[in-house]
Amino acid sequence: MTYTILDRDSIPGYLASIPRLAERLGDTENLVINEVGDGNLNFVYRIYPDGLPEVEVVLKQAVPYLRMVGDEWPLARDRMTFEIRALQLYNEVVPALVPEILHADEEMSVVVMQCLQDHIILRNGNIDAIEYPVVVDHITTFLAETLFKTSSLYLESEAKRRLMDRFTLNTELCKLTEEFIFSFPHMDHESNYSNPTTDRYAADVFRRDDAYTREVLRLKDLFMNKTDALVHGDLHTGSLMVNQDETYVIDMEFAFMGPFGFDVGKIMANFLLAAISHFERSEGTAYQDWLLQGCIDIWSGFQTKFRALWDAQSEDAALVLDGMLSPEGLAVFKDETMRGIFRDAVGFAGCSCARRSVGIAGVADIRSIEDEERRAELEIAALELSHSLVSHSRKIAEIGDLEDLVRNFFAERAALHR
Amino acid sequence: MTYTILDRDSIPGYLASIPRLAERLGDTENLVINEVGDGNLNFVYRIYPDGLPEVEVVLKQAVPYLRMVGDEWPLARDRMTFEIRALQLYNEVVPALVPEILHADEEMSVVVMQCLQDHIILRNGNIDAIEYPVVVDHITTFLAETLFKTSSLYLESEAKRRLMDRFTLNTELCKLTEEFIFSFPHMDHESNYSNPTTDRYAADVFRRDDAYTREVLRLKDLFMNKTDALVHGDLHTGSLMVNQDETYVIDMEFAFMGPFGFDVGKIMANFLLAAISHFERSEGTAYQDWLLQGCIDIWSGFQTKFRALWDAQSEDAALVLDGMLSPEGLAVFKDETMRGIFRDAVGFAGCSCARRSVGIAGVADIRSIEDEERRAELEIAALELSHSLVSHSRKIAEIGDLEDLVRNFFAERAALHR
Repeated sequence: MTYTILDRDSIPGYLASIPRLAERLGDTENLVINEVGDGNLNFVYRIYPDGLPEVEVVLKQAVPYLRMVGDEWPLARDRMTFEIRALQLYNEVVPALVPEILHADEEMSVVVMQCLQDHIILRNGNIDAIEYPVVVDHITTFLAETLFKTSSLYLESEAKRRLMDRFTLNTELCKLTEEFIFSFPHMDHESNYSNPTTDRYAADVFRRDDAYTREVLRLKDLFMNKTDALVHGDLHTGSLMVNQDETYVIDMEFAFMGPFGFDVGKIMANFLLAAISHFERSEGTAYQDWLLQGCIDIWSGFQTKFRALWDAQSEDAALVLDGMLSPEGLAVFKDETMRGIFRDAVGFAGCSCARRSVGIAGVADIRSIEDEERRAELEIAALELSHSLVSHSRKIAEIGDLEDLVRNFFAERAALHR
Repeated sequence: MTYTILDRDSIPGYLASIPRLAERLGDTENLVINEVGDGNLNFVYRIYPDGLPEVEVVLKQAVPYLRMVGDEWPLARDRMTFEIRALQLYNEVVPALVPEILHADEEMSVVVMQCLQDHIILRNGNIDAIEYPVVVDHITTFLAETLFKTSSLYLESEAKRRLMDRFTLNTELCKLTEEFIFSFPHMDHESNYSNPTTDRYAADVFRRDDAYTREVLRLKDLFMNKTDALVHGDLHTGSLMVNQDETYVIDMEFAFMGPFGFDVGKIMANFLLAAISHFERSEGTAYQDWLLQGCIDIWSGFQTKFRALWDAQSEDAALVLDGMLSPEGLAVFKDETMRGIFRDAVGFAGCSCARRSVGIAGVADIRSIEDEERRAELEIAALELSHSLVSHSRKIAEIGDLEDLVRNFFAERAALHR
C-alpha cells in the first residue's frame, strides 16, 4: 500500500485489509480509536472494537516530520523501518520484555502491537514515587541479552556485519542524538531550554571546563563510531511500560549499532534525574534511595547477566577464538571489557543528565516542577552530577566507586535542601 | 552484461564493447594480453594493441574464489564492488596517488585502469635495497587525505553514515583480516606457516603471554567495531607501485570503515619487516636505516598532514561543533586524538609483524630467504618486535618513544647478527 498518513477515518479500512487484525478485531466498523498524545515523534493510537476492550491494539505510524513540532521540522519516516527491525529482533531475543508485533508494514511506516493496558510509563510512576520491585531485574535482562547477543562476543563475523548493515542508515535519529545529547547542551545553542538561573550557571560554570567537554567528545565519538551492539538508542524511563509484575521496552526508533555502554548509561541517568527531582517531590528520602539503589543495581545486574552469557558462550564468536587465551587470561580479558563498558556507561550517564536538564525535551520529572527557582536548583544539580560523572568516568573502576560518588553527591545536596 | 570469467579469448570482445576502451585501444583484434601472475585474490591482465604499448591498460577481475588457492576456497566476487567504490573515492581525494579508472563494472566484477608501466612493487624495490626519495611523502599524503576526509572530523553526520553504508558488507575480506592478522598468528592454527625453529619459539614463548594477546584482542575489537574512516585495509608494501618520482596505491579490495590507525600501522610494519630482512640481505646497515627512518617518518608525516587538514577545517563536521571548546581546549583535544591514533597504529603495526611472519602469506622480504635457520632468526625477530610493539603501544606517547624502541631493538639484533 502506498504511504498515506492514517487518521481516524482511514484506520478502520487499513485494519480491515490485514487478515490477522481483521480477525482479532472482528467488527472494524465500530472501533474506538484513542490517540495517545504523548509521543514526540510519531502518531500513536489505541484501538479496540466497541465493547471488546480486551483485544485492544496499538497502532504507531511515523510521519515525515517531527510530530511534536509539526511539518516545519521534516524527519524521514524511515525511522519506523529501524523501529520495526529492532522490535522484530527484540521479539526473538527478549520476547517477554517487548510488545508482541501483530503487524509490521515498512511501506506504510506502521507497526501494530499488543496494547499494554495494565502498564504505565515508568517515568510517571517515578514522579508519583511508586516502587516497582521487578523493573531493575527486567531492565538488566533486556540490556544483557540484547547487547550481548548482537555483539562480536556472540555473533560470527559475517552475521555481525549483516546486522550492522540493517541499521547503518538510521541517519536522522542518530544525528539527533549526536546533537542533542553530545553537542548542544555543552555549548550555547538556540535549541537549548532556558531558565535564567540555570542559564547563568551553564554559561559561567558548566560550559567553562574544556576537560569535561573533551571527554564528552570522546563519548560522542564512541556513539558515532563504535559498533559494539544493537542499542535501543533511547532507553529512558519514558520508554518503559511497567507495573508491579511486568516491564515492557518500547519506542526503539533510535536503534542502531552503537557502543555497549550507551543504553546502560542512559537508563542509569534517568534513575538519577528522577532521584534529583525527589528533592522537591518527596517527603524524606525513601523513594530517592530506591531510585539511587536502582541506578547502582542496573549496573550490577547488567554486569552479572552479561558476564554470565559470555561465560556460557561455548562456540567461537567473531572476537575471541578458543585457543587464543588461557582460561585465566580470558577471565582477565572479560574483566577488562566489563570495566571499559562500565566507564563508558558512567560517561554516557553524565552526558544524558546534562541533555535532560538544559537540552530540548527535558525530563518531566524536573521540568514539570512549576517554581522556576526551585526547578533551577534541580537543573543545576543535574549539571553538577553530569560534570562529576563525565569527569570521573575514566577513573571509576568498580561499582563501589560510582556508589560513593552518587551517594556523596546526594548527601551533600540533601544538606543544601534541608 | 551477466557475469562471466574473462580470459584471453573473451577479453578482446569485452573491451570492444566499451566505447571508451575501444577508442583508446583502437584495434582490439590484435591485442597483446599478459597475465600478471602475482595476485593472491584476482586475475590481472596487462593489455595493449600490438605495436602501441603506450596505451596499455590493466584489467582486473574478481572471481568467486581465492585465486591463489583455487575454487575450493570460495570467496564472493563482490569484493570488487568495494574495490571499485574505494578506488572511485580515492580518485576524487588523491587522484595523483591512485590509478585512473578507465572503466568500472560491478556486474562483471571488473575494473580497467591506467597501467603503471614505469613502476615496480615497493616490496620488490625494498628487497633490492632501492631507496625511493618521495615514497614516504606520498604515503603520508595518501593516509592523511583519505583518513581525514572520510571521517567524522570532516564529514557531516549523514554523509558519514552513507559512506559507512557503502562498505559495511565487505564481509568476507574483513573476516579474512580478523582471522589472519588478529587471531590465527596468535594461536596454534593449521593455516599458519611452519618453520621448525620458529614454531618452537611461537609455541614456547610468543603465544604464552596472555597480556600480549589481550591487547591484540583490544585491537581486533577496534578493527571490527570502530568506524573512524575508510581504510584501505591492506596497505602493505606490495600494494604500492613506485619509482623515483611517483607512488601509486593499488589493491583496495579490503576497503571498509575501520579505525584510523590500521592503514598507518600496517604500512609501518611492512617497513619494519623489510628492515628485519636486511639483517640477511644487505652489507652494512645503510638500507636498514633508510627503512627504519621511513617507518618513523610515516608516522611523523601522517601526523603533520592529518593535523594540518584538521586545523584548516573551517566548517562544522559531525564530531566537533564550533563553540564546544575554547581554541586551547580544541588544540588539546586534537593532541589527544592524534596520540590515540598513534598508539593504535603502533599496536596494529605489531599485529601485522606477527601475521606476516607466522601467518599464511608472509612477506617475501623474509620468506624468500632460502636458508631455513637464518629465515627462522628473522621470523623470530619479527615476533619479538610484534610483542614489543603491541605490549608497549599503550605506553608509547610520542614518536621519540617509538624511535627509541625500534632503534634499540635493531641495535640489539645487529649485535646478534654481527
